[in-house]
Amino acid sequence: MTNSSSFDAYLAPYLIARAPRLQDHSRLLAEFYDWVRTEVDAQANYTDRYAPPALETYDRNGEVVNRIVANRWYEDQHQELYRRGIVGLPYAAKAPHLLTFAMGYILAQADISLHCPVTLTGAVAYVLGSHAPDAVRERFLYDVVRMDGLAKTGGTWATEQHGGSDVGATTTVAISNEDRFALHGLKWFTSNANSGLAVATARPEGATPGSAGLGLYLVPSHLEDGRPNHYRIRKLKDKLGTKGLPTGEIDLLGAEAIEIAPPPHGFKLMMEALEYSRVHNAVGSAGVQRRSLHEALAWAKTRRAFGHALWDYPMVQDELLRMRVEFEAGALLAFEAAIAFDETQQNAQHRTWLRLSTALAKYLTAEYAIAATRAALELIGGNGYTSDYPVARLLRDAQVLTVWEGPANIQALELLRLLAPRYRGWEQYQSRMQAILDGLAQGLGDLSGALQDRLRG
Amino acid sequence: MTNSSSFDAYLAPYLIARAPRLQDHSRLLAEFYDWVRTEVDAQANYTDRYAPPALETYDRNGEVVNRIVANRWYEDQHQELYRRGIVGLPYAAKAPHLLTFAMGYILAQADISLHCPVTLTGAVAYVLGSHAPDAVRERFLYDVVRMDGLAKTGGTWATEQHGGSDVGATTTVAISNEDRFALHGLKWFTSNANSGLAVATARPEGATPGSAGLGLYLVPSHLEDGRPNHYRIRKLKDKLGTKGLPTGEIDLLGAEAIEIAPPPHGFKLMMEALEYSRVHNAVGSAGVQRRSLHEALAWAKTRRAFGHALWDYPMVQDELLRMRVEFEAGALLAFEAAIAFDETQQNAQHRTWLRLSTALAKYLTAEYAIAATRAALELIGGNGYTSDYPVARLLRDAQVLTVWEGPANIQALELLRLLAPRYRGWEQYQSRMQAILDGLAQGLGDLSGALQDRLRG
Amino acid sequence: MTNSSSFDAYLAPYLIARAPRLQDHSRLLAEFYDWVRTEVDAQANYTDRYAPPALETYDRNGEVVNRIVANRWYEDQHQELYRRGIVGLPYAAKAPHLLTFAMGYILAQADISLHCPVTLTGAVAYVLGSHAPDAVRERFLYDVVRMDGLAKTGGTWATEQHGGSDVGATTTVAISNEDRFALHGLKWFTSNANSGLAVATARPEGATPGSAGLGLYLVPSHLEDGRPNHYRIRKLKDKLGTKGLPTGEIDLLGAEAIEIAPPPHGFKLMMEALEYSRVHNAVGSAGVQRRSLHEALAWAKTRRAFGHALWDYPMVQDELLRMRVEFEAGALLAFEAAIAFDETQQNAQHRTWLRLSTALAKYLTAEYAIAATRAALELIGGNGYTSDYPVARLLRDAQVLTVWEGPANIQALELLRLLAPRYRGWEQYQSRMQAILDGLAQGLGDLSGALQDRLRG
Amino acid sequence: MTNSSSFDAYLAPYLIARAPRLQDHSRLLAEFYDWVRTEVDAQANYTDRYAPPALETYDRNGEVVNRIVANRWYEDQHQELYRRGIVGLPYAAKAPHLLTFAMGYILAQADISLHCPVTLTGAVAYVLGSHAPDAVRERFLYDVVRMDGLAKTGGTWATEQHGGSDVGATTTVAISNEDRFALHGLKWFTSNANSGLAVATARPEGATPGSAGLGLYLVPSHLEDGRPNHYRIRKLKDKLGTKGLPTGEIDLLGAEAIEIAPPPHGFKLMMEALEYSRVHNAVGSAGVQRRSLHEALAWAKTRRAFGHALWDYPMVQDELLRMRVEFEAGALLAFEAAIAFDETQQNAQHRTWLRLSTALAKYLTAEYAIAATRAALELIGGNGYTSDYPVARLLRDAQVLTVWEGPANIQALELLRLLAPRYRGWEQYQSRMQAILDGLAQGLGDLSGALQDRLRG
Repeated sequence: MTNSSSFDAYLAPYLIARAPRLQDHSRLLAEFYDWVRTEVDAQANYTDRYAPPALETYDRNGEVVNRIVANRWYEDQHQELYRRGIVGLPYAAKAPHLLTFAMGYILAQADISLHCPVTLTGAVAYVLGSHAPDAVRERFLYDVVRMDGLAKTGGTWATEQHGGSDVGATTTVAISNEDRFALHGLKWFTSNANSGLAVATARPEGATPGSAGLGLYLVPSHLEDGRPNHYRIRKLKDKLGTKGLPTGEIDLLGAEAIEIAPPPHGFKLMMEALEYSRVHNAVGSAGVQRRSLHEALAWAKTRRAFGHALWDYPMVQDELLRMRVEFEAGALLAFEAAIAFDETQQNAQHRTWLRLSTALAKYLTAEYAIAATRAALELIGGNGYTSDYPVARLLRDAQVLTVWEGPANIQALELLRLLAPRYRGWEQYQSRMQAILDGLAQGLGDLSGALQDRLRG
Repeated sequence: MTNSSSFDAYLAPYLIARAPRLQDHSRLLAEFYDWVRTEVDAQANYTDRYAPPALETYDRNGEVVNRIVANRWYEDQHQELYRRGIVGLPYAAKAPHLLTFAMGYILAQADISLHCPVTLTGAVAYVLGSHAPDAVRERFLYDVVRMDGLAKTGGTWATEQHGGSDVGATTTVAISNEDRFALHGLKWFTSNANSGLAVATARPEGATPGSAGLGLYLVPSHLEDGRPNHYRIRKLKDKLGTKGLPTGEIDLLGAEAIEIAPPPHGFKLMMEALEYSRVHNAVGSAGVQRRSLHEALAWAKTRRAFGHALWDYPMVQDELLRMRVEFEAGALLAFEAAIAFDETQQNAQHRTWLRLSTALAKYLTAEYAIAATRAALELIGGNGYTSDYPVARLLRDAQVLTVWEGPANIQALELLRLLAPRYRGWEQYQSRMQAILDGLAQGLGDLSGALQDRLRG
Repeated sequence: MTNSSSFDAYLAPYLIARAPRLQDHSRLLAEFYDWVRTEVDAQANYTDRYAPPALETYDRNGEVVNRIVANRWYEDQHQELYRRGIVGLPYAAKAPHLLTFAMGYILAQADISLHCPVTLTGAVAYVLGSHAPDAVRERFLYDVVRMDGLAKTGGTWATEQHGGSDVGATTTVAISNEDRFALHGLKWFTSNANSGLAVATARPEGATPGSAGLGLYLVPSHLEDGRPNHYRIRKLKDKLGTKGLPTGEIDLLGAEAIEIAPPPHGFKLMMEALEYSRVHNAVGSAGVQRRSLHEALAWAKTRRAFGHALWDYPMVQDELLRMRVEFEAGALLAFEAAIAFDETQQNAQHRTWLRLSTALAKYLTAEYAIAATRAALELIGGNGYTSDYPVARLLRDAQVLTVWEGPANIQALELLRLLAPRYRGWEQYQSRMQAILDGLAQGLGDLSGALQDRLRG
Repeated sequence: MTNSSSFDAYLAPYLIARAPRLQDHSRLLAEFYDWVRTEVDAQANYTDRYAPPALETYDRNGEVVNRIVANRWYEDQHQELYRRGIVGLPYAAKAPHLLTFAMGYILAQADISLHCPVTLTGAVAYVLGSHAPDAVRERFLYDVVRMDGLAKTGGTWATEQHGGSDVGATTTVAISNEDRFALHGLKWFTSNANSGLAVATARPEGATPGSAGLGLYLVPSHLEDGRPNHYRIRKLKDKLGTKGLPTGEIDLLGAEAIEIAPPPHGFKLMMEALEYSRVHNAVGSAGVQRRSLHEALAWAKTRRAFGHALWDYPMVQDELLRMRVEFEAGALLAFEAAIAFDETQQNAQHRTWLRLSTALAKYLTAEYAIAATRAALELIGGNGYTSDYPVARLLRDAQVLTVWEGPANIQALELLRLLAPRYRGWEQYQSRMQAILDGLAQGLGDLSGALQDRLRG
């Protein structure tokens, strides 16, 4: 494929208009896009079909080793992502997080199985960088933000067997042991199960029930003497999609952990980590929409039926237009949240808008992404139902977007909370909408009026 | 599991009210349901995850053998379905086709990978039984309707590399050779690729282009001397779902074939076969809805979050209610078509209503089925995203329901055709709707009026 | 395939001459042979290549379930073997064990992955039938000898991580708990890992080190209330061969067990179980020789090179002759031990000869079997190196024959022990040889003299 | 692992004494050894167990594409071997072939699935370099000897369905077409099936039967316009071992080919290519012995039974000693042939000794290699029977060493031919033996006499 002059002909102009700093990184993004659309996409198809990861819990002497055998191509690209700065750039080069969210958007167009672990690593970096005690940050942050090919990857261990949404019911116990803690429990759905550094929720002995009793702990995969930490990956989930990504059940058998925050702060920190990863979920969903649109267009242009190219047919045009409109809506909303993320780092007053736009974006883009993969698959038809085209993989992968980082109902609850008087979210929503309407081009005046009516109504 | 007294607590009363003859078969259906929900479901999960079919095109001496290695459990159940009469009952016992469509509805709740080949076998039986020359029917019909455990299975070979909808562009050529034909071409998407008897569209040498030049031919898997027929299954498709079902690309290398109908009748007969299989597609889709609803209910009843069972939550109730309503709508529409199928066998004047209701049902139930699997998966959440629950398999399988037997656009074109004056479909539609409205219970009077207004447009 | 009039044209006459009672069962054996060479062989090839067993240690709720997912064909045949009496006949019908050893010989010609678990089940039956306390025998023996399709299968859990030969170093501990024991430890190489009833060596708390401190215990797979017993199959071994057979590592986590024998009798009983299974190993090895010879002959007769059938070539004839001679030597030696087994049941004075002939036969037939598979593979050449022919599977499977039930060195030590004055094995060996020599036909007189010289020598 | 100072503590001194030029390359060999024993060995275990190659004969448009999907790790190492000069060094740097044979010996200790294709590429280079017409050599040789990471890999397509030894019965036909040939036929056992350049035997139309009618042709995988050449890889063999190596059946459908030699020279050239690859087979076999010895020693040193390390036991020492002696015998014999190969390039009079020593070495080292893997496996016992240790893989791979490049009988015929008066092989054999005996150390005088007697006898 030829080198691209832009990472996205549709989206780049808008993003750069909204965040001119991105212009400085436009070449980095274009090169990243070229690599993703050729190399990463080829790897993703290969890994999904031929060489998903396998688990070897025990070594040949019967000792727990927690080895996950991923194929080398996937592993090399995973590390290459960190080398290119998808997590490290905001730390090493003071780049905006927006840049790394844009990289996530691009990456998700080819491989959600790589986008997910990158998100987790970024979340661990964010927690360590923003909220960890100095000593912990100084000791561990560099491990996850380094760009020299030796980065450790991250994990967020919250979900337990009773379910992912109800974090307050966490049953994992943290037992104090000198300057460390020993964690006991079962974490049920740990993506990137072979992370080098995970953050985990746990309840210290004697702490109160519910989310107020939770602390947050850092769990390295190996002890300082090189032995595996005291936990056992008991199995990998056999998932519908994101097959390249190892997701495990983990028995914590006194796993050595470092306290990041004691109760009652653990829950709040885990929620802040979610703020970060939900933005990634939203831009990733927009990436899935983008790819689906790309595949649908490519097919419609070249496929002929009844004597015409498909896209000569009004019903096909109608479908493609719907995909395009929903893509633009999804992408703009997702990046609204991404920009708010950087603003919130500068000024905490932006947090309500960040949470509000994130909840909206997380919910809506996931819906859009699933619809887009289905639309592309149905357009391509029987061929789209096979691994000869990437849309079947995208469709399987996309189903996870509504499921993880909080399903629709959880986002709705978050919205209800924020729209309530305490957070004054409604005012912020109105004000942001008004600014958008004020910026509409003259020729769309009537549209503006109609939208304002709707907004008031 | 306990023995069921009915094959479906929701649906059975309605069906028996509409078609009292079904009452005679209620025990057969209840036993069938018990077998499907225990044995077939277990097989379907196993086959999908552990032992999908493999292809051995050549034997160890280098000869084409077209051997498809399915696991024995799947194979045994496939034959058991014929033994129970899912194709043969209307032939052996003059049972209504409705009975076998009801069996299809039940079967699809557990395994679309078995429902599909049964549909194909039924379609071949229907074509042979209703439209083949006497000599052909007498020679071959018994092979596909026998209920002694030795039935041959069927295939319908129409789709070529240029696409499935545009059958008129068929490039397969039929060369006359004494009382047989030799077929040359490439069939691109042949489900149940190891069928014993397939019907195939082909164009005799010198016939006109387009659908008017197509004949229909019967292709046995083996020649009379026991050697494989002259074709080669070149590969199996690596599909998103229906993994238990072998779907192949087939090179016809002078395959010996028996004429069922010369041009211009071939296309029309293939369309009549589709009438049959689209009804199966619709009842199968309703079956997928039924199973999704079942799984969602089972989860909502037993799963607890934030101190309550899920189905105590209004948002969950809302979702379950939507699934139930759409299931009833889908199932009633699908069986409307199924009943019209039997009526059309009695009286050809019912054909327009059959085609109209089938097009509506095929389209709408497939949409519903996909939505139902997604709803169930999202309710179950991360667990639903794994093979620990059957919904991920159902979701993959369900995507095929919109794709095969004609996608949405093709059903829309069929509807437009039938609503045109030539077929007087609109009158029939109005009349059927009026009858339904007239039958509504008194207490729903206002609803009836509102629907009538809507109908008048 | 035609029905056989005899189970083995080469071997049957000899066996019947040696043990005329077998004549009564000749039809049973011939039918068994027909079934094995067609159905079992097809299953063995399929299972090995396409559907080996998988382990699901945990269920979807996170509970230990120890489910081994074998394909249905393998499972059905496993149970069919018990239905045909391969373990039960000596108990139900007072048939000689020789009959079941002959069945083992036949079975191993097609599938060692089925022969092995049958051997284990037979060993458990033998221990229970001959050595268990009355109450234990009455409660459990029927479970493993029943011939109604519901038999439980057996296991012998001795090998630990430190190695299989040094049983005296067993580290598994048995803790007394009312009328049961709770076993704690790690069993390292448990074939037929999903046995319903296993016998296990363990050391009661406080017992002496070494083999004198070992007891023998019966471990059911499930507790009386239906829950899984307290152990965990942690993984299945990825073996070179016998891929159809699940072989696991088992963590005993307080597994409930019933005492069969307290120290110091445990070790001795496990050794008697080995007497039984080593005879099976020997007849199975002879079966592998037989099959290899069969495959080599079939190839040599039909394959042509340089203008002639292979078996026209002296070098090929030479190889085939060597295979035939070694087969006869191996089979006669193996059945010498098999016959001694029955004699020992009648009269314990035969035990030395049983042990001596078993050690010789176990060692020598395993060597022969490996050599035979190699010879057949090399004759068939590149084709033999593929799964298109069964010899590559046989070769992989055969490597286990030297490894399990005691390798060559252990058999040598057993021989040294028996030849020592205490057991007077040498006298018995000489006497048996003399009887053979006396029975040689006249025409072989010189041969007899030469052998006598050698024997004296 | 630490960096090695020598590539082989046992063998290096001898080889350097025999061929002092090797000293110049000792660092290259030591580095090569370090890379092979760490990286290549890890890849070989991974590829064998988790990611063997797969074939995609057709692309998604139904066109033949002959794509073999190997895992990236294997592919990268394959190219890295050429970068390190395992084929190119004798061409680029005038290094002796002995150096590349030594690299083959090292490589085979870890991965025969890589050693084989390297051998084939070397054989194509040898044929092109030594025997092709100038124009062909100038056009194609560089493609296979380049060391810049872009080398094409080689194949030798001789074996047909009727068998590998009887090359004279070749049925592939070469039809002249301007300056090229079109090949039609079926090649049955093509290792490294996705070679970029293969040499193939074929019979021009009208040529005489038998080996005298064979020409030799060069077959590129792609035409000059980039399309795949006119052949179809119809399937990959499911082999006992060398699973990393794709071995296919290839339908030649008018494959475009360039003449290297017309009849009657084709057969002779293919035989000379075999001279090269048989030497590699022999040094590779010695490599397998070396690795088996290494694994056996490592186990015997660390494993304890009955209170002692295994190698304290005389029976174990006896076995290890046998392995060591056979390794030395095998390696010295193999390198005798390797050295003769270089000498023959200098002086054609050495050819008889090359052929004679090669036939002896090819035969004997393959036998030794299989015996060594079996000995190592049995020493390690049940653990050795699993993929936890590499010996099971070595054993499977080693079986191919007797089978390909001519089995034992073919080597025996070659020996008989060479020992006949025409070639005066016996004299050369005696003379070489005498030189060895003369060089024996004084203290071994009696041994020398005994060997001389044996030689005369």
